Amino acid sequence: MRVLGIDPGLTRCGLGVVEGTPGRPLSLVGVGVVRTPADQPVAQRLVAIEAGIEEWLDRHRPDAVAVERVFAQHNLRTVMGTAQASGIALVVAARRGLPVALHTPSEVKAAVSGSGRADKAQVGAMVTRLLRLTEAPKPADAADALALAITHIWRGGAQARLDAAVAAARRPTTTAGRRP
Amino acid sequence: MRVLGIDPGLTRCGLGVVEGTPGRPLSLVGVGVVRTPADQPVAQRLVAIEAGIEEWLDRHRPDAVAVERVFAQHNLRTVMGTAQASGIALVVAARRGLPVALHTPSEVKAAVSGSGRADKAQVGAMVTRLLRLTEAPKPADAADALALAITHIWRGGAQARLDAAVAAARRPTTTAGRRP
Repeated sequence: MRVLGIDPGLTRCGLGVVEGTPGRPLSLVGVGVVRTPADQPVAQRLVAIEAGIEEWLDRHRPDAVAVERVFAQHNLRTVMGTAQASGIALVVAARRGLPVALHTPSEVKAAVSGSGRADKAQVGAMVTRLLRLTEAPKPADAADALALAITHIWRGGAQARLDAAVAAARRPTTTAGRRP
Repeated sequence: MRVLGIDPGLTRCGLGVVEGTPGRPLSLVGVGVVRTPADQPVAQRLVAIEAGIEEWLDRHRPDAVAVERVFAQHNLRTVMGTAQASGIALVVAARRGLPVALHTPSEVKAAVSGSGRADKAQVGAMVTRLLRLTEAPKPADAADALALAITHIWRGGAQARLDAAVAAARRPTTTAGRRP
């Protein structure tokens, strides 16, 4: 499974592609950042972010896209731009029919480091270790995008196993009625 | 000048097209709302909003687009969806090379009613009067979209006159150097 993780932002939008299946070593496919100049109108910046994500989807053909869920409580100053960029990420992926998932920062931190309150350095260190890199990807937005992709592969795997178990449990009974 | 006003929102995205020039009676070209079901994933809802705005641009061919500027301070519960929808509106317009402007709710209220603290009913009443309608457009999101378009026509006119004055003032001098 190949996943594009997107850490949305107007100034720096982190992009990271990881390939793997749960329980096996993961591999880095690509990592980078789309930057847009702060003195450009927001509409132009969003168009550049859209084009950047489109290019990454064309180049890396992921099976799914994972986007960081943005909360209004944090960073009031930048949150609107972040939310707008996340909207663009969701639309670009959904328009292509790709499965899109949102993961919260705590879910991502917990998935890669075991603690939902891990700091940037810990996340960077774990991404470096899990992908067997020689150094942590820079900037932090790029490392966060990879952590999102890793989280998605691991959670997706767990979800797939749950779905399979549910399907197996339901097999002998009638398929009529509503899905549980 | 024909302007599409967009009052962004995930559940109801107001759209209103107004034609006119400053100082002359305005006319209503079209008004409506794109609705998306709350039980759909956000990515799907944003794709539906994008398609709805594209359709309105195709049908009404506006010269410019005016979008309400969203602030993080208000309605923390819904502001993220609103910001995402506004990002879509900005991208759809900018992708076509249309001029896009953001107007704050206070600017819109002040433009159509004379007070930046006017309530929904006042804005609805003024939109009805200015466009010579028999009743206020419903829901409020539709009326707000029309108010945005009206604001843009009026402010755009003022801006155009300012630009012309600046251009006229600069004409006799050298054009070298930075723009003021």
